[in-house]
Amino acid sequence: MISTDICIIGAGPVGLFAVFEAGLLKMRCHLMDALPQVGGQLSEIYPHKPIYDIPGYPTVKAQELVDNLLDQIDPFKPTFTLGERVEQITRQEDQSFIVTTNEHTKVHCKVIVIAGGLGCFEPRKPTIERLEDFEGRGVAYMVKNPELFRNKQVVLAGGGDSALDWTIFLSEVAEKVTLVHRGDTFRGAPDSAEKVFNLAKEGKINLLLKSNVVRIGGNGHLKEVFIADQANEVTALEADHLIPLFGLSPKLGPIAEWGLNIDKSAIVVNTEDYSTNVPGIYAIGDINTYPGKLKLILCGFHEAALMCHSAFKFVYPDQRLSFKYTTVNGVNAF
Amino acid sequence: MISTDICIIGAGPVGLFAVFEAGLLKMRCHLMDALPQVGGQLSEIYPHKPIYDIPGYPTVKAQELVDNLLDQIDPFKPTFTLGERVEQITRQEDQSFIVTTNEHTKVHCKVIVIAGGLGCFEPRKPTIERLEDFEGRGVAYMVKNPELFRNKQVVLAGGGDSALDWTIFLSEVAEKVTLVHRGDTFRGAPDSAEKVFNLAKEGKINLLLKSNVVRIGGNGHLKEVFIADQANEVTALEADHLIPLFGLSPKLGPIAEWGLNIDKSAIVVNTEDYSTNVPGIYAIGDINTYPGKLKLILCGFHEAALMCHSAFKFVYPDQRLSFKYTTVNGVNAF
Ligand SMILES: Cc1cc2nc3c(=O)[nH]c(=O)nc-3n(C[C@H](O)[C@H](O)[C@H](O)COP(=O)(O)OP(=O)(O)OC[C@H]3O[C@@H](n4cnc5c(N)ncnc54)[C@H](O)[C@@H]3O)c2cc1C
Ligand SMILES: Cc1cc2nc3c(=O)[nH]c(=O)nc-3n(C[C@H](O)[C@H](O)[C@H](O)COP(=O)(O)OP(=O)(O)OC[C@H]3O[C@@H](n4cnc5c(N)ncnc54)[C@H](O)[C@@H]3O)c2cc1C
Repeated sequence: MISTDICIIGAGPVGLFAVFEAGLLKMRCHLMDALPQVGGQLSEIYPHKPIYDIPGYPTVKAQELVDNLLDQIDPFKPTFTLGERVEQITRQEDQSFIVTTNEHTKVHCKVIVIAGGLGCFEPRKPTIERLEDFEGRGVAYMVKNPELFRNKQVVLAGGGDSALDWTIFLSEVAEKVTLVHRGDTFRGAPDSAEKVFNLAKEGKINLLLKSNVVRIGGNGHLKEVFIADQANEVTALEADHLIPLFGLSPKLGPIAEWGLNIDKSAIVVNTEDYSTNVPGIYAIGDINTYPGKLKLILCGFHEAALMCHSAFKFVYPDQRLSFKYTTVNGVNAF
Repeated sequence: MISTDICIIGAGPVGLFAVFEAGLLKMRCHLMDALPQVGGQLSEIYPHKPIYDIPGYPTVKAQELVDNLLDQIDPFKPTFTLGERVEQITRQEDQSFIVTTNEHTKVHCKVIVIAGGLGCFEPRKPTIERLEDFEGRGVAYMVKNPELFRNKQVVLAGGGDSALDWTIFLSEVAEKVTLVHRGDTFRGAPDSAEKVFNLAKEGKINLLLKSNVVRIGGNGHLKEVFIADQANEVTALEADHLIPLFGLSPKLGPIAEWGLNIDKSAIVVNTEDYSTNVPGIYAIGDINTYPGKLKLILCGFHEAALMCHSAFKFVYPDQRLSFKYTTVNGVNAF
C-alpha cells in the first residue's frame, strides 16, 4: 500500500500546485488521476491553446503551464497513480484514510484533497451494439499504454485531435491502423490532419472518410469491425482493437458517494480553509463551491495555499506552523 | 480631475493585477501610489530577489514579476498617479467617490479598491535637529525626480542599496555628490559598493565613511550639512540637498481614517468579494484580513478576481455579467 501525508485526487493544475504549498510545510503528497496524464482540463482539452489570465504570464500555453507546475513541484518529489479512477475512501480508526481506485490500488493518507475539477472525464461512447461487452476486450476509449497495440490491427474512430494524434503515433507501432471518420475534413489541428492525409496517400494507414463503425464482433475478444460508407455499404474489417475517440465529458462520478455536502455537482467548502463537511477532507479548484466562487485556475492556487495551512494540523497535530516567505526561506527539497 | 471606473490605491503586485481582471470586465482603472514607482514591496524592498511560490514560476525575480504584470495589464491602458499619498476619500451624492492626494490630485471614480499592502512606506528618519523644518526645503527621503538635483550640491546618507544606487546615479547629474555612511563597508550589493569606492578613488564623489550627519543649517532652504567623523570632529559642508536613505517602514497611515473596519492594522473584508463595510470600497492583498488570511501575492491575485466580479455591479448597475474564459474569449484591449 502506498503511504503519504496528503492524497490528492485529481492532478489538474490545482492538484499539482497543492503539492508545492504542501511541500513548503514539509507534507508529502501522492497524486491520483483517472486520466493517463497529469494536467486535468488543460492537458486533456486545450493543451496548445494560450491562457491569458495566469498572473504574471501575459500569455502561456496550457501545456506549458502544466509543465512549469511540474518543474515547480519537482523538489517535493510527488508520487503518482495515473489512469485509475478513485472509487472509494474509507476512514480508519485512527482517523486516517484509505483511498481505493477502480484497479484496487490503495493509498493510505492523513488528509484527502479533492482537486477533481469537473469530475472524471467519461468517454463519449458511440452507439454501437454490444460495445460495452468488448470494453477491456479490444475496445478502449483512451490510449493508456501504446505498447499494447504493437503489431496489432487497430481501428480508430473520430475526427478531433485525439483521433488524429493517435493515428499518427500508432502508425509507427501497430501492424495496421485504420481511421474511420464520418466527415471528410477534420476538426483537429490542420497540420495533424495533413499528416494523416499524407500517411493515407503513402499507404501507411487506411483512411475511411464519410464512414461509420456500425457493428463489432468477436468471441470473448474483439475480432471484427463493420464499417458503413456513405452509400451505406458495409465492409467487415479484421481488428484486434477498436478505439472510439469522440471526446470526453466530465461527470462527478464516485465523488458524489463519499458523504460530502454537494451542491449542483460541486463540493460545498468553508472559505477559511476550503475544508468540506468531513474533517480531514478538503476540496479545491473547479470541484468546490462557495459564495463568490469563480472556476478559474488562479483561484484554485489560492485555495491550495490556504488549504495546506489548515491540513498541517492533521499531519503534524503537535507542531506549530511557522509561516515563512519563500524569498526569505527558500524551497527546501525533500 | 481624473475620472475612471475604479481607483486603485496601491500599485503593488495585487493592485496591478486587479487592472487585468477589471479590464476583462471592461472596467477602466487608475492606480495611485505614494512611491515614485509601481511594484509595492517587490520593487521597493527586494527587486532582485527570487520568489519561488508564484504558481507556474519555479523562480521569478521580484522586479521581473512586476514587469510581467505591467505587460499583462498593458492592453487595458491603466493610468497612474505616482509619488503621491492618498489622504482622503469623500463620497458624492450619486454614491461615486473623490479620492484626494497629499498633492491635491483628485480622482473621481465609481469604485475604490484599496491594495495598500502594509500601508505607506514612511522613511526611517535619522535624529537630526530641525530635520523636519527643512523637509521639502532641501531635505528629501526619496528621489522622485532626479532632475531636481542637476548641478546641485547633494549629500546622501546611508549604507544600503538605495544610498549606493542613488550615489552612482547622481554622480552623473549633480555638481557634487557626498555620501556619508557610519560604517566602512556597505550592506548593499557588492558590485554597487565597488562602483562607489571606485567613484571616490577617481574623485567623482566625496565618500565619508565612519561618519554621521549631526546638524543641518540654512535660512528657509538647506545650506549646510555638518558631519562628524570617527574622532567626533565636525566639518561643515555646503549643500543644497540632503537625502537620508535609511530605509522605509510601512505604516497604515491615512487609510485608518476612512471609516473602514480595521483589525490589527488590516481592513476587515467579506471573503465573498473582498468588500469592506463601506459599499463600493474593496480591500485586496496584504492590506485586508479575514479568517485564514495569508499575506501571499498569489492570494491577492485571487482576491482581485473575485473583487472585480462584485465591483462590476457598481460600474454597470444595469448589465448582467457574463463570465468567459480568456482562452475562449481572448483579451480585448481598450
Ligand atoms: C476550453 C477551456 C478554456 C479555459 N480557459 C481558462 C482560462 O483562460 N483561464 C482559467 O483560469 N481557466 C480556464 N478554463 C478552466 C480551467 O481549465 C479550470 O479552472 C482548471 O482546469 C481547473 O483545474 P482543477 O485542477 O481544479 O481541475 P481539472 O483541470 O478539471 O482536473 C481535475 C482532474 O481530476 C480528475 N478526477 C476527477 N475525479 C476523479 C476520480 N474520482 N479519480 C481520479 N481522478 C479524478 C480528472 O480526471 C481531472 O484530470 C478553461 C477551461 C476550458 C475547458
Ligand atoms: C523580504 C520579503 C520577501 C517576501 N517574499 C514573498 C514570497 O516569497 N512570496 C509571497 O507571496 N510574498 C512574499 N512577500 C510578501 C509580498 O511582497 C506581499 O504579499 C505583496 O507585496 C503584497 O502586495 P500588495 O500589492 O498587496 O501590497 P504592496 O506590495 O505592499 O503594495 C502596496 C502599495 O500601496 C501603497 N500605499 C499604501 N497606502 C497608500 C496611500 N495611502 N496612498 C498611496 N499609496 C499607498 C504603498 O506605497 C505600496 O506601494 C515578501 C515580502 C518581503 C518584505
